[in-house]
Amino acid sequence: MTPQTPSGSKPTPGSERDFTAALARFLPARDDVVVGIGDDAAVVRNQKGRSVMCCDPVIAGVHFAAAAPLRLVGRKAINRNLADLAAMGAVPDHLLVSVVFPPGFPSRSQRQLFLGLRAAAAAANCVIVGGDVAVGPGPLVVTTTAIGHLPGRALLRSGARVGDTLHVTGPLGGSIAGHHLRFSPPLAEGVWLAGQRRVHAAMDVSDGLVLDLHTLLQASGCAGAELDAGAVPIRAAARRLAQSGGATALQRALGDGEDHVLLWSQAAGELAAGGPLTHRARRPIGRVLDVAGLWLRHADGRRERLLVRGFEHDLTGAHRPPSARSGRHRAPR
Amino acid sequence: MTPQTPSGSKPTPGSERDFTAALARFLPARDDVVVGIGDDAAVVRNQKGRSVMCCDPVIAGVHFAAAAPLRLVGRKAINRNLADLAAMGAVPDHLLVSVVFPPGFPSRSQRQLFLGLRAAAAAANCVIVGGDVAVGPGPLVVTTTAIGHLPGRALLRSGARVGDTLHVTGPLGGSIAGHHLRFSPPLAEGVWLAGQRRVHAAMDVSDGLVLDLHTLLQASGCAGAELDAGAVPIRAAARRLAQSGGATALQRALGDGEDHVLLWSQAAGELAAGGPLTHRARRPIGRVLDVAGLWLRHADGRRERLLVRGFEHDLTGAHRPPSARSGRHRAPR
Repeated sequence: MTPQTPSGSKPTPGSERDFTAALARFLPARDDVVVGIGDDAAVVRNQKGRSVMCCDPVIAGVHFAAAAPLRLVGRKAINRNLADLAAMGAVPDHLLVSVVFPPGFPSRSQRQLFLGLRAAAAAANCVIVGGDVAVGPGPLVVTTTAIGHLPGRALLRSGARVGDTLHVTGPLGGSIAGHHLRFSPPLAEGVWLAGQRRVHAAMDVSDGLVLDLHTLLQASGCAGAELDAGAVPIRAAARRLAQSGGATALQRALGDGEDHVLLWSQAAGELAAGGPLTHRARRPIGRVLDVAGLWLRHADGRRERLLVRGFEHDLTGAHRPPSARSGRHRAPR
Repeated sequence: MTPQTPSGSKPTPGSERDFTAALARFLPARDDVVVGIGDDAAVVRNQKGRSVMCCDPVIAGVHFAAAAPLRLVGRKAINRNLADLAAMGAVPDHLLVSVVFPPGFPSRSQRQLFLGLRAAAAAANCVIVGGDVAVGPGPLVVTTTAIGHLPGRALLRSGARVGDTLHVTGPLGGSIAGHHLRFSPPLAEGVWLAGQRRVHAAMDVSDGLVLDLHTLLQASGCAGAELDAGAVPIRAAARRLAQSGGATALQRALGDGEDHVLLWSQAAGELAAGGPLTHRARRPIGRVLDVAGLWLRHADGRRERLLVRGFEHDLTGAHRPPSARSGRHRAPR
């Protein structure tokens, strides 16, 4: 047996020790991080009051294609969680990142992932305070926990009321063409909306507008809603994808998912002037009804029933067919 | 296309919606949880001051055998993180759980996993506030984030000094025989030790005593330490496993890992009376030296150099050969 000094010991490349040491060197220090990466846990100074926290994974072959640039994978892993905080009206402060690498994952690729993680954290003015890495027999899994605070009230899914108008912060559909890796979380919008009394409910659009609207209505105890076919903002990529047949651009906007815009309901009327919303976002895309079901309202006043079937991740990295399709039933009124 | 009412919609079994709804029903409410599972993120009332947070996954085939009871897998997923908080002297408050199920994971098995997660949270008087689930092409991965507070100072890895005695809260080795699934995090011990001025540094023993001691010394800027061969407490399972040959019981205690006891260093002398420590834990197992390297000291005063090679998870679910073996070199003094 060869004796070996501690300083000569070389943990397996890609081990937690390497990773956390690399992360620690890699990440900027910040005053509120009392103990960062490298101890058993991180210690941070917290805001007196309430913390907001969420945790979501991204998985190779499910949330991104195996060939996706790892810098963008890191970005998505963080921004998915920041979009959830945005939907609460929260400001992100701290992040924990847990990575499961497949065997033999190259260190160059690890570095690209770090770069993406770090850039996304920096862009949101928050900091990665903890890291863990393991090697597993499956695909790359990057699980991020985001923890933040509330400058004002929490924006919940549960406050929508009949008569509210419905809005989204940006265009929808065709996320698979690249937006799902490159979106920025609508943090400024979330905080601003939480400061608007007229805003009753909000959520992150991740599973597709129709399914998420359904979720918001259920959380609020509301029976139904209608969307105006001509008012739903459609991402250019959804129009491009629609040209190859399959789903229409509107169907994609209604059902593709991974848009990571905010959907909110507000008392009919105008929000305060100023703030980060686009002019388009201030225009209603629909309204909450006292009629059961989800409906698509056409320019001629005709209402079609919408199927509630959400975007579901599949194992090819490609989106399933759009989830919301119009049925043939007339609205009851 | 069949029209479908929202109330009639049925998301894929095992989807996030099912899971989070099930979790929400399943988990007890608590006053400090303002918004629990079911919104974009959880909102909790925090302690004014400092938060302590960590995040670790358990992976089928790496941290547990595919045949391990899922209740124990859930327990381990949480307790691994609580052991990290314990090593900081922290009290856990809130947990987030992210699960990646393999395709077709039975709902009965999901329930067993929930039961284990819930029981471990309840045993530590903390609460699961967020949950996420995805289905991925790989093995079961359960990633837990634990967030707590510090009743006193943070116990760091970095405070050890030459002349400190070394201690552990419990016996070591042979964890693979069952302890790695069934251990309880040493939370009371962590908080109590943090309240003892004499205690200089502490960490969770997860990678094996020798490797973790090496880590603690490096974090503290100390050159070396010795362990007393006769004083290292050995778990009964390590003795049993040693009977089948391979590593000795002591080698297992030094290197097996996943013990999840606390290793700490303290100024020589006695800690305060009372508290949760066993009599055995108060007895030193070694001391910090101003001599480089890690050494095993025998009853006759002879010192053997210890190799620093940690427990590394492998893909069979079985432990690798014990990591710390004695070399033949004499200590320099």
